[in-house]
Amino acid sequence: MQSDSPFRNAAQRESDRVAKRAAVLRAAVQMFNERGFFATSLDDVAASLGISKRTIYHYLANKDQVLLECVTIGLRQLLQAAQEAEQEPGTGRDRLIRFLRRYAEVNMDDFGRCVIRTGEEALAPESRDQFRALKRKIDDALRGLLEKAIEDGSIAPLDVKLTAFVLAGALNWPARWHAADGSMSSEQLSQGMVDILMAGLIPRDA
Amino acid sequence: MQSDSPFRNAAQRESDRVAKRAAVLRAAVQMFNERGFFATSLDDVAASLGISKRTIYHYLANKDQVLLECVTIGLRQLLQAAQEAEQEPGTGRDRLIRFLRRYAEVNMDDFGRCVIRTGEEALAPESRDQFRALKRKIDDALRGLLEKAIEDGSIAPLDVKLTAFVLAGALNWPARWHAADGSMSSEQLSQGMVDILMAGLIPRDA
Repeated sequence: MQSDSPFRNAAQRESDRVAKRAAVLRAAVQMFNERGFFATSLDDVAASLGISKRTIYHYLANKDQVLLECVTIGLRQLLQAAQEAEQEPGTGRDRLIRFLRRYAEVNMDDFGRCVIRTGEEALAPESRDQFRALKRKIDDALRGLLEKAIEDGSIAPLDVKLTAFVLAGALNWPARWHAADGSMSSEQLSQGMVDILMAGLIPRDA
Repeated sequence: MQSDSPFRNAAQRESDRVAKRAAVLRAAVQMFNERGFFATSLDDVAASLGISKRTIYHYLANKDQVLLECVTIGLRQLLQAAQEAEQEPGTGRDRLIRFLRRYAEVNMDDFGRCVIRTGEEALAPESRDQFRALKRKIDDALRGLLEKAIEDGSIAPLDVKLTAFVLAGALNWPARWHAADGSMSSEQLSQGMVDILMAGLIPRDA
């Protein structure tokens, strides 16, 4: 196959398709986050890319599939953060902190933000099950990291379920409302939040 | 005025009106929380009360006003919690804890839940300003309680904005996703969450 052919070969066509599909998802997720899922139509998404809604349907079946793909990308980023943290050296606390910081960062990014902002009621019933299953994996990973840090004594022997709930809540929040202070990067904000959660409010020297 | 008259007097009519308006708001807030604001119509709210949408319009002008009233009730409960906490004896930390526990409880109740679940984009622009102004008051109250607890040394000298953001995030979360463990009452859950936030995860005896 000649590289200077005006016809695109199979690999190029596939790479185009992947890039176009990704561009549709990125445009959609930003609009869902800004306007809300129900207030966004695929016509709006198409218009923002200068294409027609029919073109979107070459890549994605319907609005529910668009949303499901967006949240799945976000959830996979979180799962990957957990898997990377589990490989880290150090104590259980070090691995937990590593995960929590990355978790907070992902939640401030487009796809992670969409995971948080999307109520389950927005998804079709069969998509909802997939969404929940992936979320459960991430919750399990967080609980696993907490259990191991309790076992090696690097964190206090807390109620794992409740602690996971508090941590997730605090670190999901930036996805709903913007940063407390716009002057901090998402990395700085993540680190600052995790520091507060790890140390607590009660003075250490008391 | 005879108390056995079949005609209701002005005070009774006013009390009826207030009760009916409150019933409409309660039915609406529960439906908004369950299905989402955009997926709920005033026809659905009316049907759940066995009345017509026209009847709702005797009490409330439109769906935006219904939502604004619902979130305002929730926000006023939070403000009241702050004012009550400020009157409490003890240290700044005691007052902060008192507020945080009540804050978490309100957020698990119908109207507080609606405050959290409602994206600003759901409100009409002029309602949005009112909503934001009330939210700002609550954020100011939380920051004030933190500042005073730092001043009297009963909590560590943390970044007040960021700490308020972490606390609010963690304690708003139960409004979005149900309790980590259904076996806990909202009081127990509030207390457990606030305990974790106050003490942190790092062992105290380390």
